[in-house]
Amino acid sequence: MANIRVAFDDLVEFSKQVFMKMGLNETDAFISADVLVRADLRGISSHGVQRLGRYYNGIKDGIIIPDARPEVVKEGGAFIWVDAHHSMGQVAAHETMEKVIEKAKQSGIAVGTVYNSNHYGYAGHYAIMAMEEGLLGFSLTNSAPLVVPTFGKEAVLGTNPISLAAPTKRNRPFVLDFATSVVARGKIEMYNKKGEKMPENWAVDEEGKVSTDPARILKNLAERLGGGILPLGGVGETYGGHKGYGMSFLVDILSGVLSGANFSIKVASKKPAKEGEKPYHNVGHFFLAIDPEIFVGREEFMERLDEIIDIIKNSEKAKGQDRIYIHGEKEFEKMDEYMKEGIPLIERVYLDMKKIGDSLGVPFPEFREDK
Amino acid sequence: MANIRVAFDDLVEFSKQVFMKMGLNETDAFISADVLVRADLRGISSHGVQRLGRYYNGIKDGIIIPDARPEVVKEGGAFIWVDAHHSMGQVAAHETMEKVIEKAKQSGIAVGTVYNSNHYGYAGHYAIMAMEEGLLGFSLTNSAPLVVPTFGKEAVLGTNPISLAAPTKRNRPFVLDFATSVVARGKIEMYNKKGEKMPENWAVDEEGKVSTDPARILKNLAERLGGGILPLGGVGETYGGHKGYGMSFLVDILSGVLSGANFSIKVASKKPAKEGEKPYHNVGHFFLAIDPEIFVGREEFMERLDEIIDIIKNSEKAKGQDRIYIHGEKEFEKMDEYMKEGIPLIERVYLDMKKIGDSLGVPFPEFREDK
Repeated sequence: MANIRVAFDDLVEFSKQVFMKMGLNETDAFISADVLVRADLRGISSHGVQRLGRYYNGIKDGIIIPDARPEVVKEGGAFIWVDAHHSMGQVAAHETMEKVIEKAKQSGIAVGTVYNSNHYGYAGHYAIMAMEEGLLGFSLTNSAPLVVPTFGKEAVLGTNPISLAAPTKRNRPFVLDFATSVVARGKIEMYNKKGEKMPENWAVDEEGKVSTDPARILKNLAERLGGGILPLGGVGETYGGHKGYGMSFLVDILSGVLSGANFSIKVASKKPAKEGEKPYHNVGHFFLAIDPEIFVGREEFMERLDEIIDIIKNSEKAKGQDRIYIHGEKEFEKMDEYMKEGIPLIERVYLDMKKIGDSLGVPFPEFREDK
Repeated sequence: MANIRVAFDDLVEFSKQVFMKMGLNETDAFISADVLVRADLRGISSHGVQRLGRYYNGIKDGIIIPDARPEVVKEGGAFIWVDAHHSMGQVAAHETMEKVIEKAKQSGIAVGTVYNSNHYGYAGHYAIMAMEEGLLGFSLTNSAPLVVPTFGKEAVLGTNPISLAAPTKRNRPFVLDFATSVVARGKIEMYNKKGEKMPENWAVDEEGKVSTDPARILKNLAERLGGGILPLGGVGETYGGHKGYGMSFLVDILSGVLSGANFSIKVASKKPAKEGEKPYHNVGHFFLAIDPEIFVGREEFMERLDEIIDIIKNSEKAKGQDRIYIHGEKEFEKMDEYMKEGIPLIERVYLDMKKIGDSLGVPFPEFREDK
């Protein structure tokens, strides 16, 4: 069998049914499914339905509590602090960002942090929620340790992504969403599958030396033998590796240290924090929304953002290049294509999903074979 | 004559007297001098007194208005919008951050943007102001175009720095302060002076190809012949250059697009925006402060930040390395040394400053020759 294409709505419905069978209520199941499938829709398949199995196992193992209700611990006119109580990260993140948006519309700016949470999908989703309401939205999260600090050889920071989304009038919205490491683990896995050497300066081995061997890096990370992915800027300080390390650190300070969540090597640890407890991941998130109305105004902000996008897009191209991309543009183009043609799934992902569906009595939706 | 060392206080006093002779009132002159000399004190000499001549010329040419008063255009409980009216950037930035700190203590978070401003010195200064009050402080600014976007060959973005400072109890505070390009222009100038080739992946030439020739890059930038410094992550997308490009873009959106300042190629342009006007630089800044009291609490935040610093600092070192640095640490150590031993100035900077002092009747302070 080959790869397949499934309609966006069908894939959301299937994932929603799976989550409902796992104990989520209909709203939470829809949110979780929607965030997952929208990652695929934007071409970020690393954060899409291929992760369904991980959430499935997380719920089965009691790490994710499917019917937990995120609780507001404290709030004010411009802030909200949320204990997710080990719910799906998507559910806690979505509820928190909704309130941050509401507060930002009142106060001009609002911030929210979440602790006791889980992996929340792709960071951009929650930034986009604010952008769709005419605001600037930020979304940051910490994650399991995979990244080595400058001059170190132990993975003590996550790939800790940062997302900013901002609205435009004429152009595609600006949607920046990136891991603060040189690459995400998914890319290293791709090189491993193809049996190819990686570019230099992506990762270091158990001695802290640059390695181009993807199998070795992945084994070291899985068994925590030392080494890991390099921060943006690569090894040492020559190419600014200390800057990428600083950004990953910044994300952990905002998402983990400030929120009350785990941070550094404690995030998504396999050992429980307390005797007799489940090894809850206690991931932390940070959200921020700013209403441009308090500064240049919403209309003017969008016009000005369009203007800078035009300047950059239309600036001269390097020899051999014919296009400069604005952040989010590639993903919006994928979205247009996949909405029409269906979302492509590789065979392995399809089979994994079907197996989960079969075990829960949820039939996999109609699909067509892909070329 | 060799290089010299001057006491911190003496250098501030000299710079203050210079600014007063140039038309600043005593408070503004002190702030401007203090920000400048504190950069030297932290070892960031690229943003220190070696720039005194640029401010001197800026005031003489009417680009910087020495007695302009920054004006609050709009404010609320959690935000402030400031028109600097072409004052010294340091003055507008300092006044704005003071109000942002005050508001953050009331509302938990506050944001401020500034337009019609000028170069504000090193970004970290204003983040540190918030940190010293127990808050998390952010400071961002746009700057003259020097950076080429991914797949481009025209400098359309500044080196646009980001700073975050956060308080600790036991360790040195966390002070991240970095240009979003691979390197700052100052480093390229250093290679040029030494007549050495630069590392690959720092800059591209007028065709958009990587160049290791510092003289060519600097000439191209000065005459705007094409090419420029690469964003953090280097050329293309292999090492995440699109991420660094995105961060520089993010800074311009927050500092320039949102604030009403110039952005992209318009910042610090040599052509006036309007016929008959001075070519005001219309630089924009963005400030944010968060009071950890609204989340884990101030005490607990500092303890948790100390804990993550300990984990990272004490993690295993790469082969051949014996120390992992926390952001700001190197600068605090310089500060201790320079407070005791005096601030080192190279001969050229001393002579430039002396010349300015002589022209205004401000005597250069006592100094000792450096080894």
